[in-house]
Amino acid sequence: MTPKVFIVGAGPGRADLITLRAAKILAEAGVVLYDRLVSTEVLDLINPAAEKIYVGKEEGEQEATQARILELLESAAARHPVIVRLKGGDPFVFGRGGEEWAHLVERGIPVEIVPGVSSSLSVPALAGIPATFRGISSGFAVVTGHLREGFREAWAAYAKVDTLIVLMGVRNRASIAQALIDAGRRPAEPACFIENGTTPAERVLVTTLNAIAAGHVEVSSPAVLVIGEVVRLRNLLAAGDRAGQAKAGEPDCCPEETEARPNHK
Amino acid sequence: MTPKVFIVGAGPGRADLITLRAAKILAEAGVVLYDRLVSTEVLDLINPAAEKIYVGKEEGEQEATQARILELLESAAARHPVIVRLKGGDPFVFGRGGEEWAHLVERGIPVEIVPGVSSSLSVPALAGIPATFRGISSGFAVVTGHLREGFREAWAAYAKVDTLIVLMGVRNRASIAQALIDAGRRPAEPACFIENGTTPAERVLVTTLNAIAAGHVEVSSPAVLVIGEVVRLRNLLAAGDRAGQAKAGEPDCCPEETEARPNHK
Repeated sequence: MTPKVFIVGAGPGRADLITLRAAKILAEAGVVLYDRLVSTEVLDLINPAAEKIYVGKEEGEQEATQARILELLESAAARHPVIVRLKGGDPFVFGRGGEEWAHLVERGIPVEIVPGVSSSLSVPALAGIPATFRGISSGFAVVTGHLREGFREAWAAYAKVDTLIVLMGVRNRASIAQALIDAGRRPAEPACFIENGTTPAERVLVTTLNAIAAGHVEVSSPAVLVIGEVVRLRNLLAAGDRAGQAKAGEPDCCPEETEARPNHK
Repeated sequence: MTPKVFIVGAGPGRADLITLRAAKILAEAGVVLYDRLVSTEVLDLINPAAEKIYVGKEEGEQEATQARILELLESAAARHPVIVRLKGGDPFVFGRGGEEWAHLVERGIPVEIVPGVSSSLSVPALAGIPATFRGISSGFAVVTGHLREGFREAWAAYAKVDTLIVLMGVRNRASIAQALIDAGRRPAEPACFIENGTTPAERVLVTTLNAIAAGHVEVSSPAVLVIGEVVRLRNLLAAGDRAGQAKAGEPDCCPEETEARPNHK
């Protein structure tokens, strides 16, 4: 029978933030190739009989790893009908999901895309920062912090949007913040790093663009950076409501037992 | 016991693209307030004993409807412990989810946020258009087509990003396209409308910014508009692989029976 590769988004970390489709496919997978940003909780949902292959990219070896991933996908398709390429967040928000799709299509291997909850939106949201908010932000941009060529021009192109969300921006944070200020963004503008978002290790740092540019902000990967007036909403939303949010590994859905669940199995 | 309001993303339309958390909460809901863009398939997942209240906004009545939604959420919290506010896509990509959260927090009502798969990313992805692609797009912006104040300036702020995704842009499409061209975007740049994305009624129109500005493109709401070089990838990805994608209402996960599912129930 014809094998198929499923390019699947694993969501931001919490296992219950993957889609029904992703859960079904993980339970039936024969081979799973997974990235560094896929959480242990999500890996626990994989069919125990499946072959699990870690293909996270180490610094300086990205291209060699990418070539190996393409080879592994092809060879897996020769021996199993259900192959899963599992990526943190959504497979097309960076992460080279499109490249892998193109490679497989060119070789005649059927592909199904399973979109995921993107960390770019869900990590800020669960920390009390909505990407859009009437009267404050009519739009947002998501950009990688790994931009290399035309650094200053590239950041200038994104400097004027209402809310700016940067993934993989930890290492270049000072030069990114400076490039945005140089392109006209206010130095005092609020900014927020969310480290290990949605996991029990989550840490939230509210600061300003200026403090980041000056090298005053200590933060580790993985972290999502949000820049814009929406960061101020966190004071109201997260502070007033921290107790309401679900946490990673929390088993229960709803506030204790309820009277409204006659159909609950 | 304390009631709780769950602000839940319903995803782009297909029922299997909601999260595990959303499915669990819908099955236990006592009251569900839902929007126009929530699909029938997703509504079918709601606890049959729940009270379902349609609160879609009609043209010209948005403010009155929004005030009514806030009242309904408050009154529902007085009579049920599990109240769901169900929104198409992700609750914080427009849709005023943040405003509702703020309103509830101010009244001391606990809120849990359940992020969803955003239509802005998943609808293009499933039509063969990844928002980012190495060497073609290092970032993307998502913006509402309902911008009113400072129309030309607002669009100019978004004109220079690699990939531009517009939601609710059908009615203003010609003036949006013209504002982007005036702000320096190439008239011949590829653009794509995806009408009724991820549903059996999906229709994809590939065109150019110039053709939209000239009023040559007929399209109906709801539709996602994508502008940028990534639109060209559709020729390779979707055309080469149309058969691989799951469709709304399709029951099966995987290619026929597989040998790799010993733990499948």
